[in-house]
Amino acid sequence: MIQPHGGKLVNKIISEDRIPKNVTVLTLNEREKNDLEMIGCGAMSPLEGFMTGSDYNSVVEKMRLENGIVWTLPVVFSLKEDDPQVAVGDTVVLRYQDEIRGMMEVEDIFKADLMHEARETLLTDDEHHPGVQYLKELSGSYIGGKINALDLRDEEPFRDHRLIPEETRILFNKKGWKSIVAFQTRNPIHRAHEYLQKVSLEMVDGLLIHPLVGATKADDIPADVRMKCYETILEKYYPSDRTALSVFPAAMRYAGPREAVFHAILRKNYGCTHFIVGRDHAGVGDYYGTYDAQVIFDNFTPEEIDIIPLKFEHAFYCNACDGMATARTCPHTGADRVFLSGKKVRAMLNDGILPPPEFTRPEIAQILMDAVAK
Amino acid sequence: MIQPHGGKLVNKIISEDRIPKNVTVLTLNEREKNDLEMIGCGAMSPLEGFMTGSDYNSVVEKMRLENGIVWTLPVVFSLKEDDPQVAVGDTVVLRYQDEIRGMMEVEDIFKADLMHEARETLLTDDEHHPGVQYLKELSGSYIGGKINALDLRDEEPFRDHRLIPEETRILFNKKGWKSIVAFQTRNPIHRAHEYLQKVSLEMVDGLLIHPLVGATKADDIPADVRMKCYETILEKYYPSDRTALSVFPAAMRYAGPREAVFHAILRKNYGCTHFIVGRDHAGVGDYYGTYDAQVIFDNFTPEEIDIIPLKFEHAFYCNACDGMATARTCPHTGADRVFLSGKKVRAMLNDGILPPPEFTRPEIAQILMDAVAK
Repeated sequence: MIQPHGGKLVNKIISEDRIPKNVTVLTLNEREKNDLEMIGCGAMSPLEGFMTGSDYNSVVEKMRLENGIVWTLPVVFSLKEDDPQVAVGDTVVLRYQDEIRGMMEVEDIFKADLMHEARETLLTDDEHHPGVQYLKELSGSYIGGKINALDLRDEEPFRDHRLIPEETRILFNKKGWKSIVAFQTRNPIHRAHEYLQKVSLEMVDGLLIHPLVGATKADDIPADVRMKCYETILEKYYPSDRTALSVFPAAMRYAGPREAVFHAILRKNYGCTHFIVGRDHAGVGDYYGTYDAQVIFDNFTPEEIDIIPLKFEHAFYCNACDGMATARTCPHTGADRVFLSGKKVRAMLNDGILPPPEFTRPEIAQILMDAVAK
Repeated sequence: MIQPHGGKLVNKIISEDRIPKNVTVLTLNEREKNDLEMIGCGAMSPLEGFMTGSDYNSVVEKMRLENGIVWTLPVVFSLKEDDPQVAVGDTVVLRYQDEIRGMMEVEDIFKADLMHEARETLLTDDEHHPGVQYLKELSGSYIGGKINALDLRDEEPFRDHRLIPEETRILFNKKGWKSIVAFQTRNPIHRAHEYLQKVSLEMVDGLLIHPLVGATKADDIPADVRMKCYETILEKYYPSDRTALSVFPAAMRYAGPREAVFHAILRKNYGCTHFIVGRDHAGVGDYYGTYDAQVIFDNFTPEEIDIIPLKFEHAFYCNACDGMATARTCPHTGADRVFLSGKKVRAMLNDGILPPPEFTRPEIAQILMDAVAK
């Protein structure tokens, strides 16, 4: 089994009775709630808490933790305007909305230049970028320190598909898979994605469909609709003994290249050996070059990343090929290729037209249309 | 560029004026003629000649040359009944039919137990096995020693596609390919093969279609018909900037697992980094287990082999998948899958029926039918 990032799988899950009474309570926003869950279950190993200033600065400037381990995105807790004052050495309880989610030992309180963070990690400080918008709402003060988290999965949707890294590792072991490719997605699986997954699955033992279900921007398709798509397509079109579906409860950063490495490393913690990186992975708008999220891996040695990035082109159905292909394998022209933009598909669904089966499986088209009609 | 097997690309090609006059002339059979060409051009690096007894025995017993380098099949020159006597230290000229092909320094003359060789390397001594039939016709005396070979490619068919390892390496370099997958074949390319090649091509820079055109058994499809198939399918269905066609002038041994490793290692000499190994690679009849030619690679470290074997299942068109797949990626049943045996296809062609486009591209079906009709 592949080693977790940094060598040790973190587990910071505690039971509710371990939460101290009568200490300061700080407020998590949605991304921080997601991060707390991810750190707690070991998905963010070797992180044991929200970053202190030295790790934060090292990550922003060098894409590494202070100890040199590759880490490409800040994982930070921001002081909120209405939160009470805290001091280094305090133990604080962390709340999301009305619910206690965990606790933190305050090790560091530090100021950050948020637009510098944006330029380095998101490669832009344009306020139209959803990641920049997020940063613009923060105070500029971060609190770092080790955390503990409650396991509140029983209250969450998709409970059956909410495996933590320990559990996916047990699952892969039970299935006898030695090589496992993870597919990150925040979209329904259309035939283009299915093709990349199946090309990978020809070479490895198992496929983990690992949809991100943490915070996304408002116009992304809701997770419950997507989960229905995943369950349906797996049932109809994938061999059940070689596929697994579990959710990835992280928030999207839309950080493109840096998030591709982040996504890959976190999947290693789940026990995956290969990770699919398509064009413009974790991108948004036109902020990133088509291949930037693939090329960024060249900054690190294969041993540092360890999980193998499988770098693909966009896929399409080609009438002349009579099948799925990419520009790497199809010599024909655009006229032969069935290509629909996301915008076009949304327009078709809104108009009650099912996208063609060369673009998306009919069962998936129907789920999407039903969701639009609601 | 990947290192040749053993670290150095051999080149034992000489011009005709270097062939000595008035020395003993020995006779090459067809396989030996192929081997002489392969050794001469460096395709069999690090071999510099036909094997001496110590290398032969080491290869038969341990799948390694005496120096420990992995080598799975004997490459030997057999003394023929009508050949004149030779002694260690002699220089001899090697003739195929009426043509001088090269020369050899006689370093060793040794007896071999040919049926022991058969059992170890072919895993059978059944006389119906074409490799056993070949051995049964030999004298049992082998002559080993370094060779030199003439470059007679201008007299051979498919001259434009007869690149030696030096030349394929230059070609790959010119094309900017860093990763190249080789496809060994002694059959036309049907859609099943095309699928395996294209799955590979999604992950690597270039594809070398590398058909074996040396001695094959009589009922294999002739090389000229196959070459027409390869040229046609490449032109119609493959991106020209990512594919190359060149021939592999080796003889078939039908040695299954041992020949799979042999085929892989030789492709490394041509500069390839990946090698497709399907089910029953280089097999014949029912002599080898379905996966034996894939499993055998586990006897060696990845560094010893270096070229990466890509291990695939049989592919087929699946109507329910609406595309090509294998048992690794398709959950549907046999009824959905278009599968035709070689026997069935031959019968269809003989009856003037084109095999369906799900099995073979129409242009290829037509070439095969035209060849049958001749």
